[in-house]
Amino acid sequence: MTITNKQIHLVKRPSGEPTLDCFALVQEPLAEPLPGQVQVKNEFLSLDPYMRGRMDDAKSYAQPQALNAVFQGATAGEVIASNHPGFKPGDKIAGNFGLGWQTHATVDAKAIRKVDVSRVPLSYYVGLLGMPGATAWYGTTKILDPQAGQTLVVTAATGAVGGVVGQLAKSKGARVVGIAGGAAKCDYAVRELGFDACVDYKAADWKEALKAATPNGIDRVFENVGGEIFDAILGRMNAFGRIAVCGLISGYNGKALPLNNVRSILTNKLMVQGFIISDHLELWAQAHKELADLVVAGKLKYRESITEGVENAPKAFLGLLRGENFGKQVVKL
Amino acid sequence: MTITNKQIHLVKRPSGEPTLDCFALVQEPLAEPLPGQVQVKNEFLSLDPYMRGRMDDAKSYAQPQALNAVFQGATAGEVIASNHPGFKPGDKIAGNFGLGWQTHATVDAKAIRKVDVSRVPLSYYVGLLGMPGATAWYGTTKILDPQAGQTLVVTAATGAVGGVVGQLAKSKGARVVGIAGGAAKCDYAVRELGFDACVDYKAADWKEALKAATPNGIDRVFENVGGEIFDAILGRMNAFGRIAVCGLISGYNGKALPLNNVRSILTNKLMVQGFIISDHLELWAQAHKELADLVVAGKLKYRESITEGVENAPKAFLGLLRGENFGKQVVKL
Repeated sequence: MTITNKQIHLVKRPSGEPTLDCFALVQEPLAEPLPGQVQVKNEFLSLDPYMRGRMDDAKSYAQPQALNAVFQGATAGEVIASNHPGFKPGDKIAGNFGLGWQTHATVDAKAIRKVDVSRVPLSYYVGLLGMPGATAWYGTTKILDPQAGQTLVVTAATGAVGGVVGQLAKSKGARVVGIAGGAAKCDYAVRELGFDACVDYKAADWKEALKAATPNGIDRVFENVGGEIFDAILGRMNAFGRIAVCGLISGYNGKALPLNNVRSILTNKLMVQGFIISDHLELWAQAHKELADLVVAGKLKYRESITEGVENAPKAFLGLLRGENFGKQVVKL
Repeated sequence: MTITNKQIHLVKRPSGEPTLDCFALVQEPLAEPLPGQVQVKNEFLSLDPYMRGRMDDAKSYAQPQALNAVFQGATAGEVIASNHPGFKPGDKIAGNFGLGWQTHATVDAKAIRKVDVSRVPLSYYVGLLGMPGATAWYGTTKILDPQAGQTLVVTAATGAVGGVVGQLAKSKGARVVGIAGGAAKCDYAVRELGFDACVDYKAADWKEALKAATPNGIDRVFENVGGEIFDAILGRMNAFGRIAVCGLISGYNGKALPLNNVRSILTNKLMVQGFIISDHLELWAQAHKELADLVVAGKLKYRESITEGVENAPKAFLGLLRGENFGKQVVKL
């Protein structure tokens, strides 16, 4: 019996903020696995801010998403048929790319890896134990290396990446200040994640609040947002500060991200490092092992925002770009 | 017989572009050397863009210059009297700070060092073999480390620092593109310094010229200027590019330096490093030895722009801030 595969295709490139009509639901029969291939039922799909960049037909770190094809993205799921000796039906797997916004996929075995769901839920493999977790770990430990007593600021503080960054930095003895949108998120960052403070950038007095929360200036920054918030942070940096630039979500819809406090880079002898975690695949296994151990030991909290149904992925994605998610945005397929 | 010491004092802090009335010529008797002190006749004074920052009473990497006191700065000269066993009259010396904009100085022996004028002129010790040379060497070799085939862009390309940066990068096999103000400077950069190209930022089509001069994009940047030029450079960076931020002279008079191409830091995974050479004093001797060997061997060209008379130092300094100098700006005292 042929399986029907529900897919979301990109059918139009956005100009500015994307709209629902950029996407279309397409149904097609699932291909039988050729030799070396595996058939997968996707259970969880990751929605990530970087996907906005792929909607444009422009030079970026990620190749543009092809039009009228299934939107690429990381998923976790289960093998339903295998034509490769390394996989058998029932195996839980995850794949970073190639599986995409669809209920099923027939892929080469090298596109997936088996995962252990005895300690953590399967969905974690598209977040904490996927690209976002590796990103948080790499930026925090390999670029920022926060020291006890230093002040670290993380933007998008309750997102898939930011929440992990702040907790890792706390474990190293840093004072951690989050920046997030809304009182509920800020409350969560402080009460649940253990941040020392969190600034609500939607509040009118956010600049004053940032100043109050960083009385000794800022030594380390994990930057996900860009724009006015990044500029305010630059203005409060201490000498020899470091900034890991992981994302600039406030500019993803084509808005300019002007910076006025560039002078701080010179006067404070800052190191600003842009990075993309796919350049550091050799460290993912180490990152994921450390993060899994922490979460199992109860030393790392991880929150998901789960939307049901592949047909609702576009709407959830647009919400993610507006900061409406609270924790890692996942679609349960 | 008491010696009259002619000094330039800072008597007023500027708002915006400094003016001549910020400075005053003061004459006073030269102090006799106490035990451990040395009397020096300054022969050459260094004028450097960083001095603009010291005119403001603001947090910066350099302490503010005190009002109604001799303006600090590096000089080279000769010992005329000594109350310290390490120095005798006739010794040629250089001092980075403490000797200042004045014809003479009485200073602690630790403020000066003996220099060898058998191979290079004394004036070189306030430039190529002083702070600017160390700055060029450190930024080029320790931060940028340009590789054969890469394209390196240096702004203020014919200045005290830029000219050295470009020649060092050429010696490592990089394609070197200067940015300088005016056809004469650009001509000099290409014909005399051996740069592959030089863009005249005063020409109307400078953005097109930058594009034409960097057909394979830009891998390394030694940034002295900031503002619109830096922004255009950011827009042409290649993946994993590096930018050493040494100066932002276009913003020194308080102008904003907005950047619009900040996104390039993320998408191209750039490393941007601000630095101040006084943080790396332990490397100056190595830097100066390598630079002296190159210049003596005829492998490094070094140009000076010499103004006569301490009373003309303020005017020469204001010209330096406007880019009117051509090569290292020195005052012969």
